[in-house]
Amino acid sequence: MTDRDELPSNWGRWGDDDELGTLNLITDEVRERAAREVRTGRSVSLAVPIQPAPVFSGPFAPQTAEESPVRQIMAYTGSPAPAHADVMLFTNHHTLSTHLDALSHIVQDGQVYPGRPVGESVTMGGVVHGSTTAFAAGIVTRGVLLDLGADGPVPVDRAITSQDLDAAEERFGVRVESGDALVVRFGWMETRYRGNPMPGMAIDAARWMHDRGVSVYAGDLGDMYPQRPDVPSAMHGVALPRMGMPLIDAVDADELAAVCAELGRYSFMFVAAPPRIHGMTGVPVNPIAVF
Amino acid sequence: MTDRDELPSNWGRWGDDDELGTLNLITDEVRERAAREVRTGRSVSLAVPIQPAPVFSGPFAPQTAEESPVRQIMAYTGSPAPAHADVMLFTNHHTLSTHLDALSHIVQDGQVYPGRPVGESVTMGGVVHGSTTAFAAGIVTRGVLLDLGADGPVPVDRAITSQDLDAAEERFGVRVESGDALVVRFGWMETRYRGNPMPGMAIDAARWMHDRGVSVYAGDLGDMYPQRPDVPSAMHGVALPRMGMPLIDAVDADELAAVCAELGRYSFMFVAAPPRIHGMTGVPVNPIAVF
Amino acid sequence: MTDRDELPSNWGRWGDDDELGTLNLITDEVRERAAREVRTGRSVSLAVPIQPAPVFSGPFAPQTAEESPVRQIMAYTGSPAPAHADVMLFTNHHTLSTHLDALSHIVQDGQVYPGRPVGESVTMGGVVHGSTTAFAAGIVTRGVLLDLGADGPVPVDRAITSQDLDAAEERFGVRVESGDALVVRFGWMETRYRGNPMPGMAIDAARWMHDRGVSVYAGDLGDMYPQRPDVPSAMHGVALPRMGMPLIDAVDADELAAVCAELGRYSFMFVAAPPRIHGMTGVPVNPIAVF
Amino acid sequence: MTDRDELPSNWGRWGDDDELGTLNLITDEVRERAAREVRTGRSVSLAVPIQPAPVFSGPFAPQTAEESPVRQIMAYTGSPAPAHADVMLFTNHHTLSTHLDALSHIVQDGQVYPGRPVGESVTMGGVVHGSTTAFAAGIVTRGVLLDLGADGPVPVDRAITSQDLDAAEERFGVRVESGDALVVRFGWMETRYRGNPMPGMAIDAARWMHDRGVSVYAGDLGDMYPQRPDVPSAMHGVALPRMGMPLIDAVDADELAAVCAELGRYSFMFVAAPPRIHGMTGVPVNPIAVF
Repeated sequence: MTDRDELPSNWGRWGDDDELGTLNLITDEVRERAAREVRTGRSVSLAVPIQPAPVFSGPFAPQTAEESPVRQIMAYTGSPAPAHADVMLFTNHHTLSTHLDALSHIVQDGQVYPGRPVGESVTMGGVVHGSTTAFAAGIVTRGVLLDLGADGPVPVDRAITSQDLDAAEERFGVRVESGDALVVRFGWMETRYRGNPMPGMAIDAARWMHDRGVSVYAGDLGDMYPQRPDVPSAMHGVALPRMGMPLIDAVDADELAAVCAELGRYSFMFVAAPPRIHGMTGVPVNPIAVF
Repeated sequence: MTDRDELPSNWGRWGDDDELGTLNLITDEVRERAAREVRTGRSVSLAVPIQPAPVFSGPFAPQTAEESPVRQIMAYTGSPAPAHADVMLFTNHHTLSTHLDALSHIVQDGQVYPGRPVGESVTMGGVVHGSTTAFAAGIVTRGVLLDLGADGPVPVDRAITSQDLDAAEERFGVRVESGDALVVRFGWMETRYRGNPMPGMAIDAARWMHDRGVSVYAGDLGDMYPQRPDVPSAMHGVALPRMGMPLIDAVDADELAAVCAELGRYSFMFVAAPPRIHGMTGVPVNPIAVF
Repeated sequence: MTDRDELPSNWGRWGDDDELGTLNLITDEVRERAAREVRTGRSVSLAVPIQPAPVFSGPFAPQTAEESPVRQIMAYTGSPAPAHADVMLFTNHHTLSTHLDALSHIVQDGQVYPGRPVGESVTMGGVVHGSTTAFAAGIVTRGVLLDLGADGPVPVDRAITSQDLDAAEERFGVRVESGDALVVRFGWMETRYRGNPMPGMAIDAARWMHDRGVSVYAGDLGDMYPQRPDVPSAMHGVALPRMGMPLIDAVDADELAAVCAELGRYSFMFVAAPPRIHGMTGVPVNPIAVF
Repeated sequence: MTDRDELPSNWGRWGDDDELGTLNLITDEVRERAAREVRTGRSVSLAVPIQPAPVFSGPFAPQTAEESPVRQIMAYTGSPAPAHADVMLFTNHHTLSTHLDALSHIVQDGQVYPGRPVGESVTMGGVVHGSTTAFAAGIVTRGVLLDLGADGPVPVDRAITSQDLDAAEERFGVRVESGDALVVRFGWMETRYRGNPMPGMAIDAARWMHDRGVSVYAGDLGDMYPQRPDVPSAMHGVALPRMGMPLIDAVDADELAAVCAELGRYSFMFVAAPPRIHGMTGVPVNPIAVF
């Protein structure tokens, strides 16, 4: 199963210079399907709230602080202050920040999607190929939630397979179609913790996503932790770098699951529009499900 | 006209502790109206692309650089690198970044919306009231474009009034309703320049937005520059701090205008979902119009 | 005692545009006196070690961290890495960093040294007068240690007066002369804690420094905490802004005290050469005593 | 000459775990020799002034800016402001900043001084061996200036050899002894420019420094540029990683040369006391020559 030639891959599928990956699957037809999901305009955020950690000057700083993806510096604007402004130091790949991974984020076999040597995509001065530029116009497509944690958190040592995903579709009366954004809830928002063991997707599940044509993956969890040393991780080791499928890490799908259950439907319009910053390896995002 | 008691204001309208301002106007009914605009799922970004300025180490740095709201630092992840990551220093209120102003961004008469002393809303460690927390769940409403620059850029010394806005509605066959996001195009994307004179809204136009119940303002321009010394500026001096109307600065409405013209309609679903960062004075955003 | 007209002040003493303050007292004669202190070349650092707090990308970050004046970002230099480099976010006025306060750091009665309106010295873009530029060439003078904590930490509610300083001189057989750097040890390195009550200097002690012609003050403590509401603090409220005496905050004088006791002398050459950064409000420094 | 076994090296000389490198050569005897150089207390800074680049909020930012090693953010301290403070983003290895390179800054043959695999010295979270911690207490030793540019800038294609250094010693009547800091002036302050060809040291000159026991190198230039592809660069490729000799990059020796010429002596006490920051790859420094 870990023979690399057999791993699902889109290298070359949309050309040797492609930067969109599975976003190519979001066609006009898919967008129309997404549009048909919009009925009441009710919306749900899938982002984890970030509480910035202040950068304090002077004798007021505490000696320890919660870690945060954002260090906030309140800026001087004059005295008295006519306005309030701030500057932030932002860590793009942080487990406490809901963020979009660019396709060149992960290296596999010395290459990044779609099979380029690292040095041709990434430089000291930023990412020149396969960066967040691909997300510039925003991602609008149909979204589907598979709530694997509907009966309680997925057990820690559980590797989710294609059968689990098929079963979830059946249970929730929904089917993932080509171009859809797949939102997965493991039910781990409360208990996930950096460095602790966590369940995740098997490579077989990544292949399922490949076969179905998932355009974006957004989950409260993704890869099992700790990683098996002999197998690339399904999402960050296969889906992102080989399938060219953007990942949204650190999603909070709890409210979404509650709304889907309340409405009795598990599909919606999915809008992910991160700040339009080119050339990055990742970018914070606030994905929105619109019903 | 500049008697402060006569300026449009929502101080107290939704309570002394309100943090949503005119976002309160986005009711379920407004969302349904927005939903009805979605037909094909076609979407347009209203954000200006940001090209980060790299923070270079070593002998490779140039001696001058374009200014940018984003300073990007490529991060070390090991050698050889298994992944690529980065950290950014982000300037929240920057004229080259499309961003949402929080309600406490601007001080008027020593107070911030909805009439609180500055010290009760803003601290050295961040904003405790009237911050970007208000935008946490994203803003989904109906959007309307008034393309004031359809026949060419609005002249530099022109103060847009309620009559101009009425005329634009008539011309484009659209009417701004309570709860709508108002997108305005002056036709200045190419020519606007920091420090140069620019046209903008008259206070009379802000009062029109107040009367109509605009929930959010998004424009390629907003306030006239230079500012008249005896009059508060219409958008940053009245609409934001007194009406409690969030502003999206530095919008690019050119592509939107082209699409509206092509489709022959000037209304759409408007989605603004900035990174879910609490306690800030502003935050970058990539507003999306969905047709 | 708190009549402001009676507070020691050097406003105007070296002209209305002076940026050096009491550094003006370091004459060639003072430097020669300093030179005579150098005999063995033995040196002692007066700086507190700073352990940077890393800015981690990826799943490895802890959830809490020690606060630090320095946030370190390891930089990507290529893969494999030919070199290692880093970037740091540095908080100039931090109680865990030994740093030099520039003369315009503190405002008194709406003015900064030597009596300028704030807006003429400090802007949104940096400090244009009374900044760290004054320290550009380094400070080389004679240093004297008064070890007030030789018999144990100075009690928490103790305000050090001129009599205490006179007594210390007598005890340690040393006399502070015009142009000297004064190093004071309260014996609080182990116990000082942000937000906890601490002893410090009385205004009478600042006047003593004024009369003696101290050029720089470097102490493990300086001002009493909490501050009395009706009296400006002696060091940050009087010495820095009125006397124009640069302060080195957060000094570690423990090793210095041990060496002085061992050698039986309390004077030395004092070298403070912070990074040569212009236009700042403060700058980290590693003061060195050379014997 | 480029047979790596023949390159000068101190790997193992002071043990497999050494972090001081050639700073080990600064003995008590060397310090006494340094002390004897101090006569008048006159001092000269060898640091290039840094003009910070402000991080501007609001409509006031220019569209281009000079590059700078320092990005300064003026901090909010309240309104009206009782104090002024700032935060800086500092690039440690920058050609416009006089800085000390830590021993693990450069990798040679997959190893860093004194022959450790990279992964044992450098991590994503900082440097655990061979970092700036070695400079914590400051460097105090005798300094010697060899003014190679006394008759005009060294020609661009000139590789300085041991013979040039011998000749300079003879001309200036000084001799580099074991433990000395070597300051070299190429006369390139005005004309050096990143990316332009520059003269520098031959490996033969690094061997000369090795034989003489130089403890620290401080030059306005160091390595030739562009580098010859088949030969490691003398200072950053041999002296730093193999000899374990700390380098001070981007030194301004012009004023020092003038003072040496005026006084007719080319030796002095050399004090380099960078901010006491542990675990970094480099740190800004303001080296001081005391006469």
